[in-house]
Amino acid sequence: MEESGGKLWGGRFSDRRVDQVMERFNSSISYDKRLCYVDILGSKAYAAGLFKAGLVDQLECADICNALSAIEDEWRNETFEILPSDEDIHSANERRLKEMIGMAGGKLHTGRSRNDQVATDLRLWLRQEIDQSLDKFLVQIIQILIERAQDEMDILLPGYTHLQRAQPIRWSHYLCSYAWSLWSDVQRLIQLRDRVNVMPLGSGALAGSPFPIDRLYLSDLLGFDNITPNSLLGVGDRDFVVEFLSWASILSSHLSRLAEDLIIYSTKEFNFVTIADAYSTGSSLMPQKRNPDGLELIRAKAGRIFGHMAGFSMVLKGLPSTYNKDLQEDKEALFDVVDNLYVSLQVAAGILSTLKITAERAMGALSSDMLATDLAYHLVRRGVAFREAHAIVGKVVSMAEDQQKEMSDLTLEELQTVSSAFDSSVASIWNYEHSVEQYQVAGGTSRRAVQKQIDDLKALLELRNIPTASSTAL
Amino acid sequence: MEESGGKLWGGRFSDRRVDQVMERFNSSISYDKRLCYVDILGSKAYAAGLFKAGLVDQLECADICNALSAIEDEWRNETFEILPSDEDIHSANERRLKEMIGMAGGKLHTGRSRNDQVATDLRLWLRQEIDQSLDKFLVQIIQILIERAQDEMDILLPGYTHLQRAQPIRWSHYLCSYAWSLWSDVQRLIQLRDRVNVMPLGSGALAGSPFPIDRLYLSDLLGFDNITPNSLLGVGDRDFVVEFLSWASILSSHLSRLAEDLIIYSTKEFNFVTIADAYSTGSSLMPQKRNPDGLELIRAKAGRIFGHMAGFSMVLKGLPSTYNKDLQEDKEALFDVVDNLYVSLQVAAGILSTLKITAERAMGALSSDMLATDLAYHLVRRGVAFREAHAIVGKVVSMAEDQQKEMSDLTLEELQTVSSAFDSSVASIWNYEHSVEQYQVAGGTSRRAVQKQIDDLKALLELRNIPTASSTAL
Amino acid sequence: MEESGGKLWGGRFSDRRVDQVMERFNSSISYDKRLCYVDILGSKAYAAGLFKAGLVDQLECADICNALSAIEDEWRNETFEILPSDEDIHSANERRLKEMIGMAGGKLHTGRSRNDQVATDLRLWLRQEIDQSLDKFLVQIIQILIERAQDEMDILLPGYTHLQRAQPIRWSHYLCSYAWSLWSDVQRLIQLRDRVNVMPLGSGALAGSPFPIDRLYLSDLLGFDNITPNSLLGVGDRDFVVEFLSWASILSSHLSRLAEDLIIYSTKEFNFVTIADAYSTGSSLMPQKRNPDGLELIRAKAGRIFGHMAGFSMVLKGLPSTYNKDLQEDKEALFDVVDNLYVSLQVAAGILSTLKITAERAMGALSSDMLATDLAYHLVRRGVAFREAHAIVGKVVSMAEDQQKEMSDLTLEELQTVSSAFDSSVASIWNYEHSVEQYQVAGGTSRRAVQKQIDDLKALLELRNIPTASSTAL
Amino acid sequence: MEESGGKLWGGRFSDRRVDQVMERFNSSISYDKRLCYVDILGSKAYAAGLFKAGLVDQLECADICNALSAIEDEWRNETFEILPSDEDIHSANERRLKEMIGMAGGKLHTGRSRNDQVATDLRLWLRQEIDQSLDKFLVQIIQILIERAQDEMDILLPGYTHLQRAQPIRWSHYLCSYAWSLWSDVQRLIQLRDRVNVMPLGSGALAGSPFPIDRLYLSDLLGFDNITPNSLLGVGDRDFVVEFLSWASILSSHLSRLAEDLIIYSTKEFNFVTIADAYSTGSSLMPQKRNPDGLELIRAKAGRIFGHMAGFSMVLKGLPSTYNKDLQEDKEALFDVVDNLYVSLQVAAGILSTLKITAERAMGALSSDMLATDLAYHLVRRGVAFREAHAIVGKVVSMAEDQQKEMSDLTLEELQTVSSAFDSSVASIWNYEHSVEQYQVAGGTSRRAVQKQIDDLKALLELRNIPTASSTAL
Repeated sequence: MEESGGKLWGGRFSDRRVDQVMERFNSSISYDKRLCYVDILGSKAYAAGLFKAGLVDQLECADICNALSAIEDEWRNETFEILPSDEDIHSANERRLKEMIGMAGGKLHTGRSRNDQVATDLRLWLRQEIDQSLDKFLVQIIQILIERAQDEMDILLPGYTHLQRAQPIRWSHYLCSYAWSLWSDVQRLIQLRDRVNVMPLGSGALAGSPFPIDRLYLSDLLGFDNITPNSLLGVGDRDFVVEFLSWASILSSHLSRLAEDLIIYSTKEFNFVTIADAYSTGSSLMPQKRNPDGLELIRAKAGRIFGHMAGFSMVLKGLPSTYNKDLQEDKEALFDVVDNLYVSLQVAAGILSTLKITAERAMGALSSDMLATDLAYHLVRRGVAFREAHAIVGKVVSMAEDQQKEMSDLTLEELQTVSSAFDSSVASIWNYEHSVEQYQVAGGTSRRAVQKQIDDLKALLELRNIPTASSTAL
Repeated sequence: MEESGGKLWGGRFSDRRVDQVMERFNSSISYDKRLCYVDILGSKAYAAGLFKAGLVDQLECADICNALSAIEDEWRNETFEILPSDEDIHSANERRLKEMIGMAGGKLHTGRSRNDQVATDLRLWLRQEIDQSLDKFLVQIIQILIERAQDEMDILLPGYTHLQRAQPIRWSHYLCSYAWSLWSDVQRLIQLRDRVNVMPLGSGALAGSPFPIDRLYLSDLLGFDNITPNSLLGVGDRDFVVEFLSWASILSSHLSRLAEDLIIYSTKEFNFVTIADAYSTGSSLMPQKRNPDGLELIRAKAGRIFGHMAGFSMVLKGLPSTYNKDLQEDKEALFDVVDNLYVSLQVAAGILSTLKITAERAMGALSSDMLATDLAYHLVRRGVAFREAHAIVGKVVSMAEDQQKEMSDLTLEELQTVSSAFDSSVASIWNYEHSVEQYQVAGGTSRRAVQKQIDDLKALLELRNIPTASSTAL
Repeated sequence: MEESGGKLWGGRFSDRRVDQVMERFNSSISYDKRLCYVDILGSKAYAAGLFKAGLVDQLECADICNALSAIEDEWRNETFEILPSDEDIHSANERRLKEMIGMAGGKLHTGRSRNDQVATDLRLWLRQEIDQSLDKFLVQIIQILIERAQDEMDILLPGYTHLQRAQPIRWSHYLCSYAWSLWSDVQRLIQLRDRVNVMPLGSGALAGSPFPIDRLYLSDLLGFDNITPNSLLGVGDRDFVVEFLSWASILSSHLSRLAEDLIIYSTKEFNFVTIADAYSTGSSLMPQKRNPDGLELIRAKAGRIFGHMAGFSMVLKGLPSTYNKDLQEDKEALFDVVDNLYVSLQVAAGILSTLKITAERAMGALSSDMLATDLAYHLVRRGVAFREAHAIVGKVVSMAEDQQKEMSDLTLEELQTVSSAFDSSVASIWNYEHSVEQYQVAGGTSRRAVQKQIDDLKALLELRNIPTASSTAL
Repeated sequence: MEESGGKLWGGRFSDRRVDQVMERFNSSISYDKRLCYVDILGSKAYAAGLFKAGLVDQLECADICNALSAIEDEWRNETFEILPSDEDIHSANERRLKEMIGMAGGKLHTGRSRNDQVATDLRLWLRQEIDQSLDKFLVQIIQILIERAQDEMDILLPGYTHLQRAQPIRWSHYLCSYAWSLWSDVQRLIQLRDRVNVMPLGSGALAGSPFPIDRLYLSDLLGFDNITPNSLLGVGDRDFVVEFLSWASILSSHLSRLAEDLIIYSTKEFNFVTIADAYSTGSSLMPQKRNPDGLELIRAKAGRIFGHMAGFSMVLKGLPSTYNKDLQEDKEALFDVVDNLYVSLQVAAGILSTLKITAERAMGALSSDMLATDLAYHLVRRGVAFREAHAIVGKVVSMAEDQQKEMSDLTLEELQTVSSAFDSSVASIWNYEHSVEQYQVAGGTSRRAVQKQIDDLKALLELRNIPTASSTAL
């Protein structure tokens, strides 16, 4: 094995003179060392599997597992020394194992390939991130949103479509709309986790294993829900990565839309909300500036995360089946997306929990033209067909504009020049609280309808149950 | 209403002089007319809802529904005349309704906005495509794959990693690997369908409805599983589109990898498979050519479909919440993806069912170096640690290469110069059928392991049950 | 040739039973008929080339060219009948040619392949669109911007960074910033046109031509600047498509940023600008609404156009060299992008030329805190180091905020409690016109600096010269 | 300034309690420290500009420049200590400067903002990478390609379309096709460099500078070709990043297609080329494997690089004008793309220069059906119209297939049963060298035509001249 610097595959290449740049190009240890713990976890389980299959004896199995625990400690204490010849985390750990226990370590790879090993490691790692962090961060934001929604039910603000004032809504209704989006992200995450948590180990390089390795036993040890059903797929399938990245892209697009809203609402011109100092920054030049950097970064991350998804999707397109080295691109994309989701989600949680909404300003932005629809509905209730009512109110809007006054300041006489259907009851329309309370329909803006949303979300959060894998037993 | 050519929103704009290019830019009728039937379906249900809410009487409701049926017939008979003033399918249908039954038609839009209407239509349409076509086409390909896998179990071919010959595998094993990928597409489709089949109707423009519209009743009438829980989200959420497009992108990447394999396997150099004439084309210049155009197009569509997903994802990024006109980009992307999936899936089914695999050529491509792993395993069974065995066999491979002979042609004496662990039992290794039969592990290449895959897939297909919505009752 | 319905490549395939879906999948006539005129143009030139090479005689050449002109008329008069067997525009035109003049028509394809023909057609088409439309539309918008910039030099408005008020700027300065972006698009377009306008004709299927076809002569006839230097590249290179799509994506991102600004500036809250009625639409539900649909669509098209670029980039990734059927995806992407650019550019031009800016509102949005930087600079001029000045003014800003007054309303005494460097000359700061006039640096906000931008842009537009190809001589 | 831990913008924020995650989110020093040298370069020039404008005196200017040189040394010697409060490289360098020389350091930022500073730094950095590395690496590969093309002119191999054998070509012709693609990358790079090498310095935060800073003088000092013409654009424009990323994506798609070809050509089945050991790797499981990892990684990088372009394009879409924090995403994308291009280009150069083509195998893959086109042309020369000739040869191909013999083994009598136009001269066709020599047209496969390509490429490389900026004088 000396011939190729201790590489796992070195037996055959004689007279190999390695290109330094190629070495660096090929090596993944600089980033896949992040898989060190799950790699060890997988190897411990595999050692147990080899013992069950009679390929190592009890002593060897114990030696291997103890040495692996020692290596784990080295990683944890940052004393593990990566050698230049360590191409990847799998080689590094196995090399160290052999240094520690000699040839018994050379048995660990029996029937295993880095192809099924890395796929197993990456799935273990991603499952862990989902269970231990992503789910929690997501739920935290939803909780912040519904707590605020509960507390600030009285605050009204303009609802916008096309960024033009449309109808008055409750601030709580607005907050709930994002809680629901994020809840759908939780749902999708739970579902895709099932496709992440499937074990490829035992697929070998591509053809499976000729030894009586009990894959279901390994799967149980590692807390997997299932095993991959086909060895070619086991080593060549990265759908779980693409699906996760697509999920992350959708989630981050939710955050980007929320950020856009809040950036706009916190301009001097809108001025409904104030971002806490902790999430704002100043200018190196302009002393008065207070910039919503946190929100802008959240908005931008939607691009970055999408980019990783797009890039890795392109990597996979038209690739021959089973393992190709191209798949090595999976890890950096995945790591960067997970990292950026973490900070995005945590900063979003921070911003949402410290954000100040100034009720007077938000409600002060309401104007009577936003009740035009209510006025049309008022006519409908008095027997006018909706299309006709819409046209009548259109003329009322024009009249107010022409006179440069609020619609609510038009006299009954003026209104009646447009339609005789108006009478004194029209006065009841010009009340924003009354307006939002009218929208009693499920999903509407009334207090009761919003309260139901809050209650439903709470119940869903309580019922939700991501089964946490117990693989840490190893 | 004359001022703006009968537009639904025309009451207010006086002295409007419309830019012709803007008219065209804004208009969606040229493509959203494809929603004509689901738009009518939604309107019939809404009429029933208005009746239940006391906003139209029984006669009006009947008039509306009968007229809508008549309009449906016009679309079906291609006698519906689209007018230049028909901005979109919703306007067109409502305009025609009013022509037919006058002011009663003007009541249909009471409490409804095109914002909730179009979201409802698009969801109905997509659900229909999933239920009536996509699911079927996918299942069909899986069935073709497992039928072939059943029939052609005896055929071996080289398994490749990095496109280099790796180990012998069964052709059936190869076919099953794609069946499993497509089965995961079915699973994902069933899950996302739940998020498509949610009804926004009753969300109004953004704030819900002030009338006692029973949204659950509407939802039942239209075969929806659920209603959107928040009116802002109801009109502004296009996650179901992005999620579907992401799904389609993953599916098409599976097809692209299959296509790549088959394009390579059908080269003169590999020559394992022959694409049927019906899916090949010739050259306008080179008389001998036989090009796998069908497969190349399938491969290319993965790019096109991804492009639509990428494009629409960018449309959504950083958009303010609720409805913005930007969302109008959803339809063309969705339509084009569905259309291209249909042809891709059908052509793939045609190719897979007519493809000829020539067993002799496939098996002829096997070479004894592909048994190197088995040789190492043979040593493992004789007590050599795997890493050592791997190194020994590496030297055997080199020896064969140096002597320019097949590994299986090395004499026992020659082998023993490398390692004394070799004895006469090594002769049993040089048999490809024996090789694949060794891989008995779940998901492996042995006959039994492949048969289990076929049986499992069959069982899954039988158990699978996409609930078909019964909304056509209307 | 009967065997395959008259296909150009049909000689060899016996017993072909064609799959209907595959026929449709493979066929491109439904969209590539758009190339009908350039296809005829290319064929006329090729006929002349064949004559020059002695492969057709003068009479045959004349017959071919006259018949091609007749076919051109059929396309123009919409009397050309597409047959089901016409796979693509090249087959259709050649089929018709043979119907008209018999076997002489069969000579036209001598040494030519659809591979070099379609690449030639597409380049001719794109060059035409660049020369006749894109360049003009772009220049038109720049002209509108600089005309407005000239006329409305007096109007000030807040300049924003992070969407927070930063410093006062001239409206004209703002307009010029987009004129410069669009000018860079013109520059890039001129440069990429050189790579579009290169002729692949004579590359055959992949190997070139064995006949003495004079490619430079053909190139001159067709107005190309150059010929492709390698036949493999001639048929397999679609860089000109990707480069154009990337260009379009950058251009559309400029328009998307402009649209975003104007959408925000036209909200009720900002209210600086009013979009003309012709580019706004109303709501089918809310009578008071006035939505900037034109701008929203322009913003959205940036996503759609990017999507086509992304999709086609993925199509090309990892494709074997020379022609593969995957390349057929080039045309629909290109056509859709060009079409969407046209409407985007024209609507943008319309919006920009009819947009109303209300000077009082724009200037009314200026507030004295936007002069904080000027105040710091004032101290710098009085000898305070900038970093210290920045810190002093930061305290002044806080003081004004604490007292809830404008910074300009602080008394000199109050200012002096922060720094003794303030004296009565500070009063000169509180003038917005004075502020923008201070920024005399090249590219700054002063009248002179903005005028220079306008003058420079005008000069550049005049000097610019896209050489218009004279290929229409044929 | 104590209040916010020494942040440059800290004067105003009182009672700021910073969120740790937000700190990390906001901070860019971990990656933008890579700009340390260009940041110092820019600051030196700016100090000179301040001196020229009378804002610092000669002594202060010298102090600043000397201290900056000392800081540069600290970076070079890796003794620069980054403090937690150093948000970005600009803050870090300025903080250190003030530590060294006190308040004179506080004058350096006069009239400058991090907005124009970072844009200047990034442009300087990218220009440097283009001039010092990218251009060189590209030219190196082109040179390798044309040297091989010159040396290996005699080697023929099958030319493929649709990955099906089409016509014989020269290996040198194939190599030249990629040389041309890469040459077009050089051209594009030279053109976009002009848009990179434009100086934003002097744009301030957004409005320019109120001091008499001579921007052209600064531009000269820094080796820029030009200055940005508008301050809003100066700080908000990242087109140069997108354009560069798009360029990189096109370049990497060239490399991906080359890699795909060579991966296929190095399969056991094709077996024309052998990748040197230095660029191949083995398998940890299968001792016989020799995997083209270098090529696979190059192919994959096209996805990764595209992903960065896609991601950053999405970041920019719909962003308000001028500076937004979202722009901070530019750097990591750019750095990663440049780094990956470097290794891709160097490894590609290594592979191409060590690749072994085995002439016998390449030529052994030629088969007489690849001369079918020549046979048709032979008939054309004998007066048969091409379409008829194509049909005749189609039948000859079928006849050979039916008889399972090479086309060249058909007797003259057999040929004459298909067409009487055949006579004994047909025998001259069956010669591959003769075939490629026929294609004398410009860009064709003949020796002379290929030699011309080589000569032209050599001439272009010699003439090419990227002007190297002399900014290092500072």
